Amino acid sequence: MTRATVAVIGLGLMGGSLVRALARLPDGPRVLGASPDARDRAGAERIDGVRAAADAREVVAEADLVVYAAPLALILAMLPEHAPLLRSDAVVTDIAGLKRPVVERARRAGLSGRFVGAHPMTGGEASGFESSRDDLFRDAPVWLCGDGGVERRAALRIERFWADVGGRPRWTDPESHDQLMEKVSQLPQLAANALALVLEGARVSPVDLGPGGHDMTRLAESSPEMWRDLLTHTGPEVAELLRELGRRSEELAAYLDAGDADAVAELMARTRRWRTGRAGSAR
Amino acid sequence: MTRATVAVIGLGLMGGSLVRALARLPDGPRVLGASPDARDRAGAERIDGVRAAADAREVVAEADLVVYAAPLALILAMLPEHAPLLRSDAVVTDIAGLKRPVVERARRAGLSGRFVGAHPMTGGEASGFESSRDDLFRDAPVWLCGDGGVERRAALRIERFWADVGGRPRWTDPESHDQLMEKVSQLPQLAANALALVLEGARVSPVDLGPGGHDMTRLAESSPEMWRDLLTHTGPEVAELLRELGRRSEELAAYLDAGDADAVAELMARTRRWRTGRAGSAR
Repeated sequence: MTRATVAVIGLGLMGGSLVRALARLPDGPRVLGASPDARDRAGAERIDGVRAAADAREVVAEADLVVYAAPLALILAMLPEHAPLLRSDAVVTDIAGLKRPVVERARRAGLSGRFVGAHPMTGGEASGFESSRDDLFRDAPVWLCGDGGVERRAALRIERFWADVGGRPRWTDPESHDQLMEKVSQLPQLAANALALVLEGARVSPVDLGPGGHDMTRLAESSPEMWRDLLTHTGPEVAELLRELGRRSEELAAYLDAGDADAVAELMARTRRWRTGRAGSAR
Repeated sequence: MTRATVAVIGLGLMGGSLVRALARLPDGPRVLGASPDARDRAGAERIDGVRAAADAREVVAEADLVVYAAPLALILAMLPEHAPLLRSDAVVTDIAGLKRPVVERARRAGLSGRFVGAHPMTGGEASGFESSRDDLFRDAPVWLCGDGGVERRAALRIERFWADVGGRPRWTDPESHDQLMEKVSQLPQLAANALALVLEGARVSPVDLGPGGHDMTRLAESSPEMWRDLLTHTGPEVAELLRELGRRSEELAAYLDAGDADAVAELMARTRRWRTGRAGSAR
């Protein structure tokens, strides 16, 4: 049996962390990387056995597993461009935060049978290879989905790949995944931005934030480029969720204006029950 | 020189952590505690040398430093009740998240010269002695303020007390403190509640949250009782900040509806500059 070869396209926080995690595996695969960023390539090549190219087309043809760890727009551009270059036995996955557009693009590129999109629920506001770490995926839920025509061989190989780097793979479908992400990822992200805009407008310095305010604005440092990509493919549901956030903020403001701290405390008790998983109980 | 005696009134997360931190000090003070909660008292008394009473009046008279680590409403009730019981050389501090009402109550109770209010910028959504820990105050900023008539001896003693338990004391005045907290503490708290209400309404399970959504809703577990207290003493500014949050949410929603991901990304770049302290730079 020949040694597996994994190509990691993109060597930032996510791709760099994949390279690091793969390099730590006993009997791990040969690892190829690609990035247009010279610093990220240099960082990856300092890891024993890793070779990195500036142009992804130089490495995808050698791999039997290709991971696209790049911004969504780049993944969408590369999939059809690279499809003719891939080995016939190669399987393909990615890391984008939305799965409908990627799965659809892979299907149109003729990759349905061997493409399984992935969304590892991990990351951070930092970016670049320098912020990568070998345990980024440890115990992270990794959503997996294809278009229904995925070959069993590809599904098993990609599921094992994500488990090997430390993740906890779970299968879903692109539609359900993206609908969930609008609520658990895009809404909290935009809420952090909205809050940060208010605090900036009130001339608050971030150094004066306590632990709560710190957590509530951490996402305000997220990459605008990555999010512009994701928001381009976002449906009208996120706008509606944001309007609901606006209404809830207004509701709390109205209670405060009325001096009704009891009403606010009741809503707080409700969110505590929800967050601690006791929403349905008598407490 | 006789050994110092500290009375910690309230043995929950904050008071319990104070007891633990004091117990670890070399040549530390004798520690007395008080709590109406039998479990919290039992927890504190498992620490060597600590004695805990159900009624705070039983211990305040013995101490040369009294710390009120209770909810705001209880602190406000206890200060005038305890003032006649205190030793003539005793100094007094507290931990409440708002300082105007406490400093004013201490003044009216005749304690101006020896009361220095404190607000340690630390804590957590958990409560009770069982969630306390001896390093809760390590490196935590601790705001200190009195009413202007504080005796030098009291100021120095209380400043040293907070430094001894690991905090970083910094002086301010009650007005500036409370105005800052409306922005960095109360607004983020209520924003977390508003977001959690939206997610609950959208039938999201907290187990599906990623790290970002997790951080953004952590405060939704905060104690409603503690916050009802604080909100009772909150001015109209917080309601106005919440309305501004609503307007910002609406603004982002409008950009999304218009398909203008660029405009959202521009605002995200702005919040990133603010959060990373580069708001004034050319980047």
